[in-house]
Amino acid sequence: MLDKVPVLRVTKQGRREMEDTVVTEFHLTIVLNNRELVTLLCSPAKLEFLAIGFLFSEDAIDSKDVIKDIVLDPERGVINVTTKEPVRFAKDILSKRIIASSGGKGTSSSATIHPQSRIDSQIHISQPEVINLIGEFLHRSELYAATGGVHSAALCDTKTILVFSEDIGRHNAIDKIFGECIVKDIPTQDRLLITSGRVSSEIVLKVAKRNVPILISKSAPTNLGLKLANDSGITLIGFVREKRMNVYTHTWRLVSDGK
Amino acid sequence: MLDKVPVLRVTKQGRREMEDTVVTEFHLTIVLNNRELVTLLCSPAKLEFLAIGFLFSEDAIDSKDVIKDIVLDPERGVINVTTKEPVRFAKDILSKRIIASSGGKGTSSSATIHPQSRIDSQIHISQPEVINLIGEFLHRSELYAATGGVHSAALCDTKTILVFSEDIGRHNAIDKIFGECIVKDIPTQDRLLITSGRVSSEIVLKVAKRNVPILISKSAPTNLGLKLANDSGITLIGFVREKRMNVYTHTWRLVSDGK
Repeated sequence: MLDKVPVLRVTKQGRREMEDTVVTEFHLTIVLNNRELVTLLCSPAKLEFLAIGFLFSEDAIDSKDVIKDIVLDPERGVINVTTKEPVRFAKDILSKRIIASSGGKGTSSSATIHPQSRIDSQIHISQPEVINLIGEFLHRSELYAATGGVHSAALCDTKTILVFSEDIGRHNAIDKIFGECIVKDIPTQDRLLITSGRVSSEIVLKVAKRNVPILISKSAPTNLGLKLANDSGITLIGFVREKRMNVYTHTWRLVSDGK
Repeated sequence: MLDKVPVLRVTKQGRREMEDTVVTEFHLTIVLNNRELVTLLCSPAKLEFLAIGFLFSEDAIDSKDVIKDIVLDPERGVINVTTKEPVRFAKDILSKRIIASSGGKGTSSSATIHPQSRIDSQIHISQPEVINLIGEFLHRSELYAATGGVHSAALCDTKTILVFSEDIGRHNAIDKIFGECIVKDIPTQDRLLITSGRVSSEIVLKVAKRNVPILISKSAPTNLGLKLANDSGITLIGFVREKRMNVYTHTWRLVSDGK
């Protein structure tokens, strides 16, 4: 996931030719039932999980049971996904495009959270638990800190990180998490998702689709991300630092003492 | 571009209900010659420039002369662009999607920089000039620093910022810059572009299309962004800080003393 490149390092003291590390950008084309669907610009790891998570986010599949076959050709940057039955959503995906503010896409119809999908999980988390999880999250992300600009995501319970991923796209990092959960039958309800990136509406939609009741970000939400979190019953915690955090919606899940 | 929202601020000292500021997320649907092309998640400013810049980046238009009419309906979030002649690229845009790592998209074909588009501008810039420009850039961006997660872009000469924009998407911020340049006949060759975001291949493609010879980022490039900058003759400067910067490609344009 890393490339060594020559670089001219310029400081006030002078110039020096040296070697630097940059992150790898990979182009993955998802082919669903022999139809080219999309090309994702991503980091070249967990590509099967990325494809499954993306197809789930786009309503093309609803579980791993519908998948007949997944064949990745890393040389060509192509992943072929075949379903047991034809996918009726594929046409919508092709005909309607939304370019997200920062990667990924969502269909227009998915922008409406239906009341029946409102998350009513009674899970709660304490402030020290949030701080501990963010600490673990940052520690895991430090592997890539040197290259800059890589996003991370993690599925957690209130005590520890269960699934972790990194990608140059913040949407991809989350799709990889949920793709892995789908493939490995890892439950997501009553759990938490941490993202390194801004929380816009498409991010909240992905999280709501998996019934995750608590969404934590080091960064800020947009107004629509916040509205969707409120409407879908998600506790949205942002700007988490060692000494403070902002709880934007459904604040009752953040308790003082872990009780 | 800002929304006031209630927030629960949690610190080790306790909890406090207060008001916070979040950034506005806007959904802009671009309709080209009565055909719905794409919906961009963006910040609600300079939307005409965004639409024109996006259409230029996607090869749908090559100058403002081809445009007959632009009508923005801010209530519905729709912008109608009509061209004097039919646009032959529209079908490609609709049929081939690339989801960028962090917003925006590019067509597959545009991933190839043709030799004739190689930028041979003899402009150079000194280290103090880069530091000054970045200082001005950060000062302008401070307006949004409070909300987090907003990207900025600027077109500059070696002395000052000429055009500045902000958007929740780093691609959008750059499309807004180039859209404004197209509409106002602002030349881009022999000039510099500054971006707050990571430099992936699609970002370099946008810059190369406008023949901008120097691309400066506070953040890091990807390996493909770096390769494209090299192939297209662009001087790519990254990780700019007060005391150091990395010059990745065509380092001869960065001179020590401004001569």
